[in-house]
Amino acid sequence: MEGNDKQTEPAPGNRTEITDLGEFGLIQHLTKNIQVKNKTTLKGVGDDAAVIRKDNKEVYVVTTDLLIEGIHFDMMYHPMQHLGYKSVMVNLSDICAMNATPSQITVSLAISNRFSLESMEELYEGIIAACEKYNVDLIGGDTTSSQKGLIISITAIGIAEEKNLTYRDTAKIGDLICVSGDLGAAYIGLQILEREKQIFLENPDIQPDLEEEKYVVGRQLMPEARLDIIDILEDLRIQPTAMIDISDGLSSDLLHICTSSGAGCRIYEEKIPIAQETRDRAMKFNLAPITTALNGGEDYELLFTIDPANLDKIQHHTDFSIIGHLTKPDDGFKLITVSGNHVDLKAQGWDSFK
Amino acid sequence: MEGNDKQTEPAPGNRTEITDLGEFGLIQHLTKNIQVKNKTTLKGVGDDAAVIRKDNKEVYVVTTDLLIEGIHFDMMYHPMQHLGYKSVMVNLSDICAMNATPSQITVSLAISNRFSLESMEELYEGIIAACEKYNVDLIGGDTTSSQKGLIISITAIGIAEEKNLTYRDTAKIGDLICVSGDLGAAYIGLQILEREKQIFLENPDIQPDLEEEKYVVGRQLMPEARLDIIDILEDLRIQPTAMIDISDGLSSDLLHICTSSGAGCRIYEEKIPIAQETRDRAMKFNLAPITTALNGGEDYELLFTIDPANLDKIQHHTDFSIIGHLTKPDDGFKLITVSGNHVDLKAQGWDSFK
Repeated sequence: MEGNDKQTEPAPGNRTEITDLGEFGLIQHLTKNIQVKNKTTLKGVGDDAAVIRKDNKEVYVVTTDLLIEGIHFDMMYHPMQHLGYKSVMVNLSDICAMNATPSQITVSLAISNRFSLESMEELYEGIIAACEKYNVDLIGGDTTSSQKGLIISITAIGIAEEKNLTYRDTAKIGDLICVSGDLGAAYIGLQILEREKQIFLENPDIQPDLEEEKYVVGRQLMPEARLDIIDILEDLRIQPTAMIDISDGLSSDLLHICTSSGAGCRIYEEKIPIAQETRDRAMKFNLAPITTALNGGEDYELLFTIDPANLDKIQHHTDFSIIGHLTKPDDGFKLITVSGNHVDLKAQGWDSFK
Repeated sequence: MEGNDKQTEPAPGNRTEITDLGEFGLIQHLTKNIQVKNKTTLKGVGDDAAVIRKDNKEVYVVTTDLLIEGIHFDMMYHPMQHLGYKSVMVNLSDICAMNATPSQITVSLAISNRFSLESMEELYEGIIAACEKYNVDLIGGDTTSSQKGLIISITAIGIAEEKNLTYRDTAKIGDLICVSGDLGAAYIGLQILEREKQIFLENPDIQPDLEEEKYVVGRQLMPEARLDIIDILEDLRIQPTAMIDISDGLSSDLLHICTSSGAGCRIYEEKIPIAQETRDRAMKFNLAPITTALNGGEDYELLFTIDPANLDKIQHHTDFSIIGHLTKPDDGFKLITVSGNHVDLKAQGWDSFK
C-alpha cells in the first residue's frame, strides 16, 4: 500500500489492523456468520462465484471484482483499452472456473477529473471488445466521480447446467491435478513493465522496445479467460472434480482446493508448465522460473482435479499438464523438485493488504 | 469534486472533460452502440435494473451502485453501521422500482489503511442488518485495499414475474402520477449534518443534539427501500404503468419516465407530499420546501404512473399521493404552483461530476 490515508480513523478504541488478517482472513472473518435464506441461493460466499437457481436444470453463477488504480494497475503501463479488456477477463475467468459460460456483465466506474471522455472511450473499447469476443452482454452499471484515480467494479454472470458446476471443495484424495496453458508469464511481464517504467522515469527520451518480450508482457496486459478449456473438457466428457482459476499463483490456488476439499497434495516441479520465454526472462531477473509459476499469479489459467480414470483422455492433450495428485491431508502440501527434494507449498500469492 | 488528481493524464491529444457531459450523458455516450446478444438478456442498460430470464414465468433483475467516500458519504457524520445499511438500501430500492423482490447481493469493499478491522465489522453489521430485514442473501464480493478512503460497490439481484415488471418507458399519456411517502427530508437531513460538522470542526467541544431533527436526519442516514409498497400494490391489484425510485429528486426522476415514455407531465405543488418536519427545517435554511422535494434526492420513495381506472383503489390510501398526470409531449413538463403559476420542471438532481 502506498502512503498513508491521512484522515482520522472514525472508530477510536480497540484497533486491529486489517493487514494482520490479509484479504482472505478479512473476508472469512466478516462473512463467517452469514446464513443463506432464499431457496434460489444455491451457493453463497466462498468459491470463485456464487450460484443462484435459474430453472430446474440450469443455474446462474455470479462473481465480482474491484480493481483500483495504484493497487491493481498502473496507468504508466496499462493502456486504457488493455485495462478495459483485462478487467472483464478477470471476472470471466472466475465464471469459467465454475465450469460455466459467461453471459452478462455490469461495469461500474469511478473516475477522477484527471481522466477525459476520450480515455473513457478507450477503456470502453477494451470492455466491449472483451464482451464481443466472449459473447457477453454489458447490461448495466454505475458511473461516478472519484476523489483519486480510476476504480473499476465489474460483476459477471454466467450460465451452467447445475450438474456440471465445479466447486473448490469437492476434490477427492487420489485425483489428478491438472493445469491449462503455462504459468508464471504474467508475473515476468509485470517485472519487465516495472523495469521499463523506472527507465522511462529516469530518462523519458528512452522509448521501451518490448518486441522480444511480447509473449510475457501480453500475458500481463491482455490475459484471456480460458473459456476454450470449458468447451474442450465438455468435448472430452471430463467433469473436473474441483476447479479454480489461477489468479493468486499456483501454490495459493491449489491450497484453496486442498484445504476446502480436506486433502493434501504432491506436485512435481518438472511437470509444471512454464514457457521458454518465461524461463529466459526469469533468469535475467535472477528469479527461479518455478517461483514465478508458484507465486506469480494473474495467469488466469484453470487449475482442476480429475478422477484418475480420465487419465487417458487428457494425458497427451497439448492444452493440459498433469502436475501431480491429491494425497491424504496428513501428507501435507508438497512440491517434489527436479533434484528430488520435498518442499512445503505455501500460499505466498499476492495480497493487496500486505 | 474535491481537489485535483495530480497524476498526469494518460491519453494526451484531444480532451473532452467528463463534467461537460455529466453522469447520464457519459453513460449514454459510452453505451449507445451496445447490442444485446444473449437470449437470456431481456433488458440491458437504461432502467433502474437490467433483466435476465429466470424461467418461463420469472426473471431476475440486476442493479449495481458504487459509493465513494468524499463523494457519496462523509465519515464525519455517516456512522459505519448506518453506512452499511444505506449502501444496501440504495440498491434494494432500484430492485423495488422494477416491481421486484430483492433476493441476493454481492458486496465489494476497497479499504485504506485508515480503517481498522473493528470499523469493517461495524460496516458489516449494517450490511447484515439490511439483508436480514429484507430477507436478502449476501452471496459474494471482493475485498481489497484502496489508496484513499472507503469504496463500496454493491450489486443486487431480485426476482419478479415477468408480467409484473415496471419499466420507465411504458407510461401512457393520461396516466396518473403517484408517489409513496414524503419527499425532501433526506436533503434537509444532509444540510443539518453538514451544519453540525462545521460547528464541530470550529469547536470540537460542542456535541450536536439532533433529537429534534431525528426524522429528517434519519431519512438521510438510514433510508428504507419501499418493498412494503410493492406488496401493497400487489394487494391492491395495481400494476403501475411505469416506476422509478427517487434517488436524484422528483424532477429528475419524473423526467426520466416522461422522456423515455414520450410524454409531458403536469404536477401540482399542493399535492406533493412534504412532512411538517421537513417544511419547518427547510425554512430555517431559507430553502423553499418544494425545492427540496423537487431537487433534493436520496428519498428512495417510489414514483410511479397508473391507469386512471385505478384511481378509486389508491386515492384515499395514506401511503400514496397522486401528484398529477402525464400529458402530450408538446405540453412540456410543468409544475402548477399553489398560486397558479406554471413553472417548467428541470432535471436539477445531484450529479457527482458537476
